[in-house]
Amino acid sequence: MKKISRRKFSTTLTKGIGGAALLNGMPLACAMGNPNKPQKSLGVALVGLGSYSTYQLAPALQDTEYCHLAAVVTGTPEKARTWSSRYNIGEEHIYNYENFDAIKDDEGVDIVYVVLPNSMHAEFTIRAAKAGKHVICEKPMAMSVAECDTMMEACEQAGVKLAVGYRLHSEPFTKEVKRLVRDKTYGKLRYISADAAYISRGNPDQWRLNRELSGGGALMNMGVYSIQSIIYGSGENPISVSAQEFSTRPEYFKQTDETITAQFELPSGAVGQMMTSHNVRANRLYASCDSGWYELDPASTYIPLAGRTSDGPMNFEQESQQKLQMDDFAKHILEGTPNVAPGEMGKRDMVIVEAIYKSIAEGGKTIPLDLGNMGIVKRS
Amino acid sequence: MKKISRRKFSTTLTKGIGGAALLNGMPLACAMGNPNKPQKSLGVALVGLGSYSTYQLAPALQDTEYCHLAAVVTGTPEKARTWSSRYNIGEEHIYNYENFDAIKDDEGVDIVYVVLPNSMHAEFTIRAAKAGKHVICEKPMAMSVAECDTMMEACEQAGVKLAVGYRLHSEPFTKEVKRLVRDKTYGKLRYISADAAYISRGNPDQWRLNRELSGGGALMNMGVYSIQSIIYGSGENPISVSAQEFSTRPEYFKQTDETITAQFELPSGAVGQMMTSHNVRANRLYASCDSGWYELDPASTYIPLAGRTSDGPMNFEQESQQKLQMDDFAKHILEGTPNVAPGEMGKRDMVIVEAIYKSIAEGGKTIPLDLGNMGIVKRS
Repeated sequence: MKKISRRKFSTTLTKGIGGAALLNGMPLACAMGNPNKPQKSLGVALVGLGSYSTYQLAPALQDTEYCHLAAVVTGTPEKARTWSSRYNIGEEHIYNYENFDAIKDDEGVDIVYVVLPNSMHAEFTIRAAKAGKHVICEKPMAMSVAECDTMMEACEQAGVKLAVGYRLHSEPFTKEVKRLVRDKTYGKLRYISADAAYISRGNPDQWRLNRELSGGGALMNMGVYSIQSIIYGSGENPISVSAQEFSTRPEYFKQTDETITAQFELPSGAVGQMMTSHNVRANRLYASCDSGWYELDPASTYIPLAGRTSDGPMNFEQESQQKLQMDDFAKHILEGTPNVAPGEMGKRDMVIVEAIYKSIAEGGKTIPLDLGNMGIVKRS
Repeated sequence: MKKISRRKFSTTLTKGIGGAALLNGMPLACAMGNPNKPQKSLGVALVGLGSYSTYQLAPALQDTEYCHLAAVVTGTPEKARTWSSRYNIGEEHIYNYENFDAIKDDEGVDIVYVVLPNSMHAEFTIRAAKAGKHVICEKPMAMSVAECDTMMEACEQAGVKLAVGYRLHSEPFTKEVKRLVRDKTYGKLRYISADAAYISRGNPDQWRLNRELSGGGALMNMGVYSIQSIIYGSGENPISVSAQEFSTRPEYFKQTDETITAQFELPSGAVGQMMTSHNVRANRLYASCDSGWYELDPASTYIPLAGRTSDGPMNFEQESQQKLQMDDFAKHILEGTPNVAPGEMGKRDMVIVEAIYKSIAEGGKTIPLDLGNMGIVKRS
């Protein structure tokens, strides 16, 4: 079976670039009879088996070329059994939150993907780094900028790579927007607008609505997509932000923000505007330049994105965003291609999140931002 | 010639509803051999012969059914001669700003259309009312709420009708949006966004960029369209507003605002967001409801609007917006149909404009609005 073969491969390899060096001249993929297969596939451990792992990441990892699902970390024994049987994961690759650190000795695992509630991102990123594993952490990167710093430091010290689960940097419509920005296809940017919102009606006790676990509401969950859109849709980090909060269902959104709007000043003079909400359905990136415009709508969903420009519709083949993302991170580790969503990018977005909350707390005051090129990845 | 006939007709009639009563049973249009023609056509005087009068209103008035171009008011003798010859307007129907009040005795004129710089709206609306003429005044209605009050009082006292040149209330895509709102076709509204902006690069001394003549920049000129979109796109007057101003070309926009963003709280809980600018190209209304959405893009240009909903594109025949507007106002006068853009609506929008400038002056503070149903026209 392909899955088993992949895992077996992986366990024979040491991780990362070092591992790749060991393999020099060993055409393992060719030995399997598939000349298009890369020489190495990195093992991924999913930490947290909620719906994103279940319905997006695990299926995507069946189709990736440079990595594969190698281990899971869960606090629920029932889930451990289900996943073990569904994905043929041996008992030795199944961990819980207590014995997680033993993953250090699991040679089948090269990458740990932290798919936990926000409050656990820093802890498990740091524990994974200390276990010598590369880490990809879901968005938002952490609860605070301070936590981002500790995560980046831990990965730096351990000599492992750190990425944020910003899958859109690997997604073709988004990459096309980044190309239009890079090439200045439509001339000077004047205005960029980004909405990312859905209507939450589920269990009011879900972790996303619990401030201790989420660190915030719509802004932490969907707002980071709007922030991302503003930045990759312009190619610029904002130099100031002001923001407002709106609440209409306080009985449901007891602890977390429901709807937030924010305005950005970009160094080029372009103005940015965003809306994020757990009480609205909207998902769009729009940019107006001197000689044309571009739009993604939807701009950040898992379902296929759609895009158009003043010249007409964008057309790209649809592929799993999570597959593309995982292969990009694995290639970064294996081949030194750019880390398209490094920890620094996640930290930068948290700087902006904190400035937005600060502006709201100060009645909409404009908060200056001094980001320089922080988190801007060239040619990704 | 049709134009001359129309004008001659009009001069035989006293104005307004009273005039219509006198005509009871007199099928004048039928006498002309056209059974579809209305029984009466009101004479319109254009005050100010700038580009809007020249390229939009005068051509539209050649196609209207309930009114016709009857007189012009201009400070430029050369323009008087051109218009007289182009539109067959007799010398006795040509006025300048000094002798304008003599229009009182011009029985050919039923409606005065004020198409002057904003600073002259109040003066000429009041002088027209005192001359016993119905008035339609270009947007924004005036320089301030206080001026709007004096204009409304003057029309009230004179017993004449007052409308604002909000042509979109007569435009089919906009009327469709108002129908979707009225029928709650897509359920509860959650979010509405409105952009109205163009890039000004012309003469920096134009009146629109001169605060004494315009009263303000992008907000006064294009921002009122965004405010209008927010309100007719939701069917609600906002209960609060906060706003921000952005400036990147102060050497060009010496006296007036370049780009303004604003956020609205609506009584239903929906959130509104707008952007207006003299430095951006954008023109859109978007509303997201529980079970669908609607969008106009462009939403407020003279060129044909375009619209779509979550069910597909909107399709309407294109007609001159100005023609439809003038016929609606004439029918309001002749037949008592609703005044689709009454003075009260223009005043309400100036209340919002003043609140936006106040919020900006106070660093983005949220300004409460107590508008009730002011300016909301039912079933228009």
